[in-house]
Amino acid sequence: MIKITLPDNSIKTYDKPVTPMEVAMDISEGLARNVISAKYNDTTVETSTLLEEDGNLVLFTWRDPEGKKAFWHSSSHVLAQALEELYPGAKLSIGPAIDNGYYYDVDFNDQTISDKDFKTIEDKMMEIARGKHDFKMRSVSKADALSFYKDQGNEYKVELIENLEDGDITFCDHSTFSDLCRGGHIPNTGIIKAVKVLSIAGAYWRGDENNKQLTRVYGTAFPKQKELTEYLQLLEEAKKRDHRKLGKQLELFTFSQMVGQGLPLWLPKGAALRNRLENFLKSAQQKAGYEMVMTPHIGQKELYITSGHYAKYGEDSFKPIQTPKENEEFFLKPMNCPHHCEIYNSKPWSYKELPIRLAEFGTVYRYEQSGELHGLTRVRGFTQDDAHIFCTPDQLDAEFKEVIDLVLYVFGSLGFEDFKTQVSIRDLSTPEKYIGDSENWDKAEQAIINAAEDKGLDYVIEKGEAAFYGPKLDFMVNDALGRQWQLGTIQVDYNLPERFELTYKGADNELHRPVMIHRAPFGSMERFVAILLEHTAGNFPLWLMPEQAIILTISEKYEKYGQKVLNLLENNEIRALVDNRNETMGKKIREAEMNKIPYMIIVGEAEENENKISVRQHGGEDLGTISVNQFAELVETEIKKTLKPFKN
Amino acid sequence: MIKITLPDNSIKTYDKPVTPMEVAMDISEGLARNVISAKYNDTTVETSTLLEEDGNLVLFTWRDPEGKKAFWHSSSHVLAQALEELYPGAKLSIGPAIDNGYYYDVDFNDQTISDKDFKTIEDKMMEIARGKHDFKMRSVSKADALSFYKDQGNEYKVELIENLEDGDITFCDHSTFSDLCRGGHIPNTGIIKAVKVLSIAGAYWRGDENNKQLTRVYGTAFPKQKELTEYLQLLEEAKKRDHRKLGKQLELFTFSQMVGQGLPLWLPKGAALRNRLENFLKSAQQKAGYEMVMTPHIGQKELYITSGHYAKYGEDSFKPIQTPKENEEFFLKPMNCPHHCEIYNSKPWSYKELPIRLAEFGTVYRYEQSGELHGLTRVRGFTQDDAHIFCTPDQLDAEFKEVIDLVLYVFGSLGFEDFKTQVSIRDLSTPEKYIGDSENWDKAEQAIINAAEDKGLDYVIEKGEAAFYGPKLDFMVNDALGRQWQLGTIQVDYNLPERFELTYKGADNELHRPVMIHRAPFGSMERFVAILLEHTAGNFPLWLMPEQAIILTISEKYEKYGQKVLNLLENNEIRALVDNRNETMGKKIREAEMNKIPYMIIVGEAEENENKISVRQHGGEDLGTISVNQFAELVETEIKKTLKPFKN
Repeated sequence: MIKITLPDNSIKTYDKPVTPMEVAMDISEGLARNVISAKYNDTTVETSTLLEEDGNLVLFTWRDPEGKKAFWHSSSHVLAQALEELYPGAKLSIGPAIDNGYYYDVDFNDQTISDKDFKTIEDKMMEIARGKHDFKMRSVSKADALSFYKDQGNEYKVELIENLEDGDITFCDHSTFSDLCRGGHIPNTGIIKAVKVLSIAGAYWRGDENNKQLTRVYGTAFPKQKELTEYLQLLEEAKKRDHRKLGKQLELFTFSQMVGQGLPLWLPKGAALRNRLENFLKSAQQKAGYEMVMTPHIGQKELYITSGHYAKYGEDSFKPIQTPKENEEFFLKPMNCPHHCEIYNSKPWSYKELPIRLAEFGTVYRYEQSGELHGLTRVRGFTQDDAHIFCTPDQLDAEFKEVIDLVLYVFGSLGFEDFKTQVSIRDLSTPEKYIGDSENWDKAEQAIINAAEDKGLDYVIEKGEAAFYGPKLDFMVNDALGRQWQLGTIQVDYNLPERFELTYKGADNELHRPVMIHRAPFGSMERFVAILLEHTAGNFPLWLMPEQAIILTISEKYEKYGQKVLNLLENNEIRALVDNRNETMGKKIREAEMNKIPYMIIVGEAEENENKISVRQHGGEDLGTISVNQFAELVETEIKKTLKPFKN
Repeated sequence: MIKITLPDNSIKTYDKPVTPMEVAMDISEGLARNVISAKYNDTTVETSTLLEEDGNLVLFTWRDPEGKKAFWHSSSHVLAQALEELYPGAKLSIGPAIDNGYYYDVDFNDQTISDKDFKTIEDKMMEIARGKHDFKMRSVSKADALSFYKDQGNEYKVELIENLEDGDITFCDHSTFSDLCRGGHIPNTGIIKAVKVLSIAGAYWRGDENNKQLTRVYGTAFPKQKELTEYLQLLEEAKKRDHRKLGKQLELFTFSQMVGQGLPLWLPKGAALRNRLENFLKSAQQKAGYEMVMTPHIGQKELYITSGHYAKYGEDSFKPIQTPKENEEFFLKPMNCPHHCEIYNSKPWSYKELPIRLAEFGTVYRYEQSGELHGLTRVRGFTQDDAHIFCTPDQLDAEFKEVIDLVLYVFGSLGFEDFKTQVSIRDLSTPEKYIGDSENWDKAEQAIINAAEDKGLDYVIEKGEAAFYGPKLDFMVNDALGRQWQLGTIQVDYNLPERFELTYKGADNELHRPVMIHRAPFGSMERFVAILLEHTAGNFPLWLMPEQAIILTISEKYEKYGQKVLNLLENNEIRALVDNRNETMGKKIREAEMNKIPYMIIVGEAEENENKISVRQHGGEDLGTISVNQFAELVETEIKKTLKPFKN
């Protein structure tokens, strides 16, 4: 008898080995039609794998990440077969599933491949897919596996196999094609209904630049043509919204090879934008009882020995900075918390004074390999909208709620309406992994869950995902393109108060340890601005726009009137500029649209005579001819829609 | 015949060698009475030195820095004689004049000296001084000099003499005392009318911690008792105003041994103060057409090779920061200009767009030896209120004037009324020392002088004091204690535009080099706050005060009313807090005075009934019982006295 437990804890028993697909069929035919992969006892299996012992079965469809992974992994086999058939002698190396698709690294020898060939490859892939070939796993002895690839002259697969244990080696067959493979496929090629070769790039074998450069062929695939079409549209839109492109176009930031990779230089418009974001948060934080501090960008080795970060500084960090004398060693600060602990420690505290909330827009530096750097989302220097709250364990509940309010206020004011949250708690079965006493952990975890409930958050609880030093709450927002970004984190910390020996005098006149909360609603100013750029395509909320209006003079004759309008706008705290160039109105409007300026104010003879302005909205809507005061009211109303005061 | 030229270019001729004192006598008896030292052909001489060839003579009195130096140097001889007589066997080493006095480093062997002995030493010094002994220089052969000190067993003087050339060695005698000495004395000890031993400290022989530690005896001396008394009062006042003491008392900043020496941590009140200063300047800069940028705190080696700073990075700077891979080398940025040049270089410019004024509160890091560090005035990390103006040579004149306006606005708003300026220009006899073409230098120097004239500045021109890359204007302010601080500098630069190949397209459609102006009205935020603290003793201008008012409740019964008053004050943008502790009014007032809070607002039954407040000013003046609105008007009027808008 074989007992198979399903995720809902229901149990199916069979008197002989059974496949996941048979179990699915047993549950419902509809499910069986959709099942494309499975996990048994936490191991990925095929839907055709015979389950011969008791265990837990999870069935996946396209809607599950695991289903997608199997789908794209299987698609890479189809791509490989197509390439082998189209480019005889091409040597395959590795071809994994990745986010939104897959790739295969291939040694094409002296054959060349270009984007002109993509269509042919796609056609060949679809031809194979339509054959509805089953994916079948098979064990192969190391000797046979080696001889298979040696015969083909494929030194890459040979090298891979040489590093495997005999007995652990499996191939996957479909149609006439076989590949060294660990498994995890969809049932057959017929499920693949739409494929796309996306790009090719160079990739060193095993990522080592001393090795031969192979060709990496990127592709994606979908179970429906419509889904591929939508995905390609999304890609197109994402390309248009690429923050690196928009950042250049809107003159927000730049990079300099001489200054160094991954170190953004904020141009005037970008610095002003960031400043508005910072002031917005500062003002809310002031209402919430935070106090700003400022700390240096370096710290002595001793500081990081105390914080415990030094022990973790491995190969992957900026090297220390020595002083010429005194044998001191400093590090670029990778986080602000140790500095804030030292500020807390600069005087004694009474419980009556807590909570203390220290905030800083602190620029930190973390080494990233040059290949990992990407615009503002992956940089080597970034500014955290950091704060540390030092409170008594009893205050944790209220503080956590306050911080959630602040995070929600930030998201609301910036147009991120769609987000999920995750509560990461400890794994009770491994208490030795966590610092801090169990009672406080209970309190903290309950405080987070209470707060999440109380604030009506859409949250999941992840056991064992807490850091060793405390539980946390993470915010994941979905942007306008449906992409998910982690933004905002609230983290309880029992570790640093211990390590820095932080204390306060309690009502009992004894010294106690405060609890620390780390929090950053934006996360990093750089990353946040990047995400905001991609989310809004540069059409920021009005209150944040670098320029809210541009005055376009019909001809240079109206420069003086344009200037008058500008002064009036500035008196109304509207950021505007004048385009008085001797260009056509069409060109001026096109450029203003390109620059994402929300309002175009056209002034000519009629407007000057009436002492009015003609207003056109970004995107084309004509708001007619109105007075500057009416326009100012309109702007104010529009701003108030997104930017409300924090807690009045 | 000997021709002696005086500073006013008048010439005196003598038929035989003559002493400076005789020349002084020749000019006037009054002058002769006051002359205490002299320089001949740029060499310090005694007033009794026989001038045997033609030359330029400058006579100094106590009012000249050179006169003071001779006075204090001579006083150190008197101190040495006193110590030798009071502590037989004490070995003298070196004893120079310093700012405001002198010291002598002495090996007292097993004798001890403490502040209880200061009076005895002073009495002995005055006894010697009253003897009116002439200071007389005498040449000594190396052999004689060595044998003189070997007989005394004084290994320090022996070591000094061993490093001197035979023929160059002189002693100075007065009374029964002789000392190895280069010269530069007042005529006789009788001129010293008041002496003070100030302190003793340990000092290693030759500053090397491997050598024996000697005792450094610090003293000062004056030609009038009254001047000594005034000086001691000033010292007392300076001690009270020491920014390190006030900074701690007012909770503005702190240091942490773990973070590292010379790296200030700004506490909430200090950060808020600094923020107010920054916002004040930002707002003026915005009106003056500056744009803010933000740049990272590190830069690649290549950046500093280009800027030329790398070549100057010697032993005395923070060592480079390496990355684990890629072999990159970064430096903590010691200045912001190279980063701003790269921002300028991120796009092409037309002459129509200039001037470009890029501003940043940029934190820079410069290594200082730990012994040199001092509070906020000598630190290893500080924030410059930096800006770089990129303009055409023709715009230099107007830009320079604008910058002067801004500097004067800053000084005026912060109560620095007493200042001098210095224009540093090139030395035309050594054109090879300067970069940039001569015509532009002429223009720039003239632009600075014109601007200084135009703005009615009290300026001196110093030839040869320009940097190799351009002329400059420095502002030296005198603080409330009469001490002089360099604050604010405006510097023309032809070098960096060349090195970074900065260009703009001129009206002639050709590429031209812009001129660059570096300027920082505050200089460094840290140093400025320190000076402001010492200048104002913490009684900042009202607009800048961390807390402008404190509400003192007569008893806890009036907490609610106190809170109401606080809200009203906050609505009027007055920074205030409530002291509702159960303490006596006397104690509350004393503490508020200690904390330098400008206004104490007393609320009790009478005030609550009348819906008024009783106001007491810092320092004690009673402003009577008034309404909150009246108080708000009073505060506003007071603020407007110092803080005016920049250029309306």
